[in-house]
Amino acid sequence: MIRIYNAKILTMKEDEKPFDGELWINGTQISYVGKSIPREAAKQKWERQIDAKGNLIMPGFKNAHTHSAMTFLRSHADDLPLLQWLNEQVFPYEAKLTPEDIYHLSKLAIMEYLTSGITANCDMYLTPDTIAQASLDCGYRTVITGALNDFSQSLEEIEKWYRIYNQKDSLVHFQLGFHAEYTNRRENLMGMAELAQKYHAPVYTHNSEGKPEVKQCLEKTGMTPTAYMDSLGIFNYGGSFYHCVHMTEDDLDIVKKRKISVVTNPASNLKLASGIAPITEMMKKDICLAIGTDGPASNNCLDMFREMFLVTALAKYKEDDASAVDAKDVLKMAVVGGARAMNLTDCDVLDIGKQADLIMIDLQQPNMQPIHNLEKNLVYSGSKQNVKMTMTAGKILYENGEFFIGTAPEEVYQKAAEISKRILQEA
Amino acid sequence: MIRIYNAKILTMKEDEKPFDGELWINGTQISYVGKSIPREAAKQKWERQIDAKGNLIMPGFKNAHTHSAMTFLRSHADDLPLLQWLNEQVFPYEAKLTPEDIYHLSKLAIMEYLTSGITANCDMYLTPDTIAQASLDCGYRTVITGALNDFSQSLEEIEKWYRIYNQKDSLVHFQLGFHAEYTNRRENLMGMAELAQKYHAPVYTHNSEGKPEVKQCLEKTGMTPTAYMDSLGIFNYGGSFYHCVHMTEDDLDIVKKRKISVVTNPASNLKLASGIAPITEMMKKDICLAIGTDGPASNNCLDMFREMFLVTALAKYKEDDASAVDAKDVLKMAVVGGARAMNLTDCDVLDIGKQADLIMIDLQQPNMQPIHNLEKNLVYSGSKQNVKMTMTAGKILYENGEFFIGTAPEEVYQKAAEISKRILQEA
Repeated sequence: MIRIYNAKILTMKEDEKPFDGELWINGTQISYVGKSIPREAAKQKWERQIDAKGNLIMPGFKNAHTHSAMTFLRSHADDLPLLQWLNEQVFPYEAKLTPEDIYHLSKLAIMEYLTSGITANCDMYLTPDTIAQASLDCGYRTVITGALNDFSQSLEEIEKWYRIYNQKDSLVHFQLGFHAEYTNRRENLMGMAELAQKYHAPVYTHNSEGKPEVKQCLEKTGMTPTAYMDSLGIFNYGGSFYHCVHMTEDDLDIVKKRKISVVTNPASNLKLASGIAPITEMMKKDICLAIGTDGPASNNCLDMFREMFLVTALAKYKEDDASAVDAKDVLKMAVVGGARAMNLTDCDVLDIGKQADLIMIDLQQPNMQPIHNLEKNLVYSGSKQNVKMTMTAGKILYENGEFFIGTAPEEVYQKAAEISKRILQEA
Repeated sequence: MIRIYNAKILTMKEDEKPFDGELWINGTQISYVGKSIPREAAKQKWERQIDAKGNLIMPGFKNAHTHSAMTFLRSHADDLPLLQWLNEQVFPYEAKLTPEDIYHLSKLAIMEYLTSGITANCDMYLTPDTIAQASLDCGYRTVITGALNDFSQSLEEIEKWYRIYNQKDSLVHFQLGFHAEYTNRRENLMGMAELAQKYHAPVYTHNSEGKPEVKQCLEKTGMTPTAYMDSLGIFNYGGSFYHCVHMTEDDLDIVKKRKISVVTNPASNLKLASGIAPITEMMKKDICLAIGTDGPASNNCLDMFREMFLVTALAKYKEDDASAVDAKDVLKMAVVGGARAMNLTDCDVLDIGKQADLIMIDLQQPNMQPIHNLEKNLVYSGSKQNVKMTMTAGKILYENGEFFIGTAPEEVYQKAAEISKRILQEA
């Protein structure tokens, strides 16, 4: 058992304010969270007792949309419009990746998530088996989604993965998913709808990221991507839409009706000149919102603090209203909304019986002082530099700048450099 | 003498690429920068030799517009439009600040600059004497500008400070400045023009930050703020304009003609819903650009990495062009452009005889791997977490998370908390 005491605790339970107290971890789960109980603590046998020194303990952030293994393209394929970037810089290079490459490149991303207090990611990428292996070897929590498109993965494979990777108590889960409407022929989409129906399962996909994609779909089907995909019955059991930059009022009503989560990716949407998602309108419709970094080729960093600031700052700009989207709402998206979007019900808040997916935030740093409002400090001035510790499923994977993922960082960097070099030379 | 060896070096001299080498510091100045010369190094007596372990050495960032001591309002006065924020939340609280308060609050900001690799700041705030003292006590470089407005500071005081704080070889300089067109009666502005003429000096001010301010000036004078201020002859010797979000083509021509630097403040402009500055147009006109965080009440963090990403990401969004504003140009703004805007000619690049204002960036972190392109890594995925060391004028002020500023961090946090509490209770 691990005890973290002398902490400021933000459970993220609805309307619960930060309080001073302690938290116990038994195996993978939280066994106590509340006021300080030193007498009871003295009776226990502890593997480790951590003095938080007044720093903040809160649930880890959930990166609800990413393509982890794209680390190999970081700072290589920049400064191009979305479709050109995909077709000229991303797809040709990706075709050269081996499953083993994806294993190593995913590990590099997991390390970066840990530095940003992200305790779980939702990963859409090519080879679920090696993505899963990377997460399991690191002790990290990952929801992998299908990435079906006309050139890779098949409905049969997706069904197989769905059956393999949905065991209870595993760190890795798999959800049905396809890359996007514009990269799949109608048969694929209909097949996806059948799978969703068969398993009563949510489905994950990119949607309405750039204007050209919406225009093409309107020309092809007479419907927006949202309306077209919905007309095929794909989202009868919910799921997640990534991006949702260019949505009509009717689109948002479909999202709400189908209980689909929207995962917003503000940094990527700026960098690829896709636009700014209508977060305020989504909030008015009470749509479940989550935040993702998108992949490291389009962002280029995997940092929830940057995304959180952008969610509110861009909404303020877009609505011409400096009071738009409160910091509390942003934190909720990054933590509870992310867990919900990823279909993870046991690591959303700090509570007894929940998974111990949590982080320690260093408040004794100049950017966190003075402490008028913890939530605003986190969203408006928080930074990776404040992440002192990241724990997934009761295991400390990152602490005071050191990684505990079973591999030396230098080895991961070395592998990533070798893979990048090989692929860019081959291409 | 200090020697930093085994480094990757980015001098920021025009068109010079990063190279492997070493750098020597003698007193406050750089005495060697170039390829590794271990034999010559062996002949010297070193106070300290630092193995950079392949990490990056580059000139420090320059925060070309800020109000440091506003740290006391961080996360207190959020989520309000610019003028309401100024009139209801900022001005009444500021009126309660003592010069000593400003001393302590400025120190808190300096600590945050150090964590973000910022080696000098351009500070517009109320009491230059205690701002100067804070910087001198920390060993930090600050250009203070006048903040003349109808309620505080006088032309006489500004002239006095200009004469006191412009000694050669000092860490602290003072430049003529006023808060903004809309907070000064015409007599003030005309007095400022006379001072500029008398000393052949540049002048610093906020300009065209929000739409209402431009509209008011047009109604009052028939001219934009830029045209109106220029018509009074204030900028005959250049200076800096802060923000410049709402500028006409003619305004930009005046800026170019008067050799005025534009200091852009992207995070603040989003958070206060002021807008996005036309950076691409300014670049086309070859206007000198620099970057500022603005004060911690409007940003709320003092982080050059966030600002750098925003400069390019927002330009990409604004221009609907993912290739707008290359990372190299952004770095140039944050370093060389900042120095130029602040009238600092001796700490812009790494070169023999220049001031040793430099930083070490940790490349052995997941967000910096793989290294395809150092400049893009810095701008697109760099973070405070990568700042291993910050040196101003040859003195290490921050290294591996520790501060060397003559005061314990806890003492600075304590003071800031006390001051905030007192002021918010009084108000």
